Amino acid sequence: MKILGIDPGTARMGYSILEIPKIPTVTPIVIETNVIITPAEAEMHHRLKLLYKNLTEIIKKHNPEVMVIEKLFFNTNVKTAITVGQARGVAMLTAANKKMYLYEYTALQAKLVLTGYGRSNKKEMQAAVKESLGLESIIKSDDANDAIAIALCFVKKDLENFLNGRN
Amino acid sequence: MKILGIDPGTARMGYSILEIPKIPTVTPIVIETNVIITPAEAEMHHRLKLLYKNLTEIIKKHNPEVMVIEKLFFNTNVKTAITVGQARGVAMLTAANKKMYLYEYTALQAKLVLTGYGRSNKKEMQAAVKESLGLESIIKSDDANDAIAIALCFVKKDLENFLNGRN
Repeated sequence: MKILGIDPGTARMGYSILEIPKIPTVTPIVIETNVIITPAEAEMHHRLKLLYKNLTEIIKKHNPEVMVIEKLFFNTNVKTAITVGQARGVAMLTAANKKMYLYEYTALQAKLVLTGYGRSNKKEMQAAVKESLGLESIIKSDDANDAIAIALCFVKKDLENFLNGRN
Repeated sequence: MKILGIDPGTARMGYSILEIPKIPTVTPIVIETNVIITPAEAEMHHRLKLLYKNLTEIIKKHNPEVMVIEKLFFNTNVKTAITVGQARGVAMLTAANKKMYLYEYTALQAKLVLTGYGRSNKKEMQAAVKESLGLESIIKSDDANDAIAIALCFVKKDLENFLNGRN
């Protein structure tokens, strides 16, 4: 099965497609990871449509069963909450369109699960993702790395229960 | 031409379709107004899909040229900002799908335009909408009334410029 990790944003939306091997204890494989970038000069509704179109294509291509999306803390500033909320709304819609299961975690949860503490910085998260997946080098894009990290948070916390519930 | 007013929310989304007569100084006509309600027990991504599906049908039926959507203040609480942001994202996407023009105003702007002061309550806004449109009775649903009020805010502030720019 495949899972789709999402680091939501209207300007930049990181995503990752992870393949979970048949034996779930085997390390997941990153099939694709990238960042969807929308032009700053475009109006918000057109930027949202670009996100929707790109995500829909990625889902069509890989047919993931689960979407894992980053959830905001309630101490975020309101301006961020609105724009990230808009991007999240569009991403969650693409999950519902394809009847995917949806899981959400905060960045704090991903940090705790991957590094063991909640204040790890970008470099430490890059190292943790590289280590977890046995990659040869780090994922340079923060947004792509965060999209992998959030997917790995699901793998480590809830994949086993998910598979048991599904069967 | 028709305009679509939106009072965004994930649990309740008010909408209104107003017909602008050929002579723009003539009072607009409410063609339809209602509230899309999503079940509280449904998961968020399924609620967002319901909003998307319903709005898409309303747009298909009436073919409005402009969407007018309520914008949040930056003093909203973060939890509200996230969920309303999600509903806004989905609504704005339906506007982009149909290449509609998008206008946004805060509730404060709508109050100032319709009643002349920013602290008017629900009853005063109901009376102002009834008065502006020459209705026989008030619109009882707050969400539907807000969706009309936001559309009227566009009519009174920006319709003339919009029509001049379009021609």
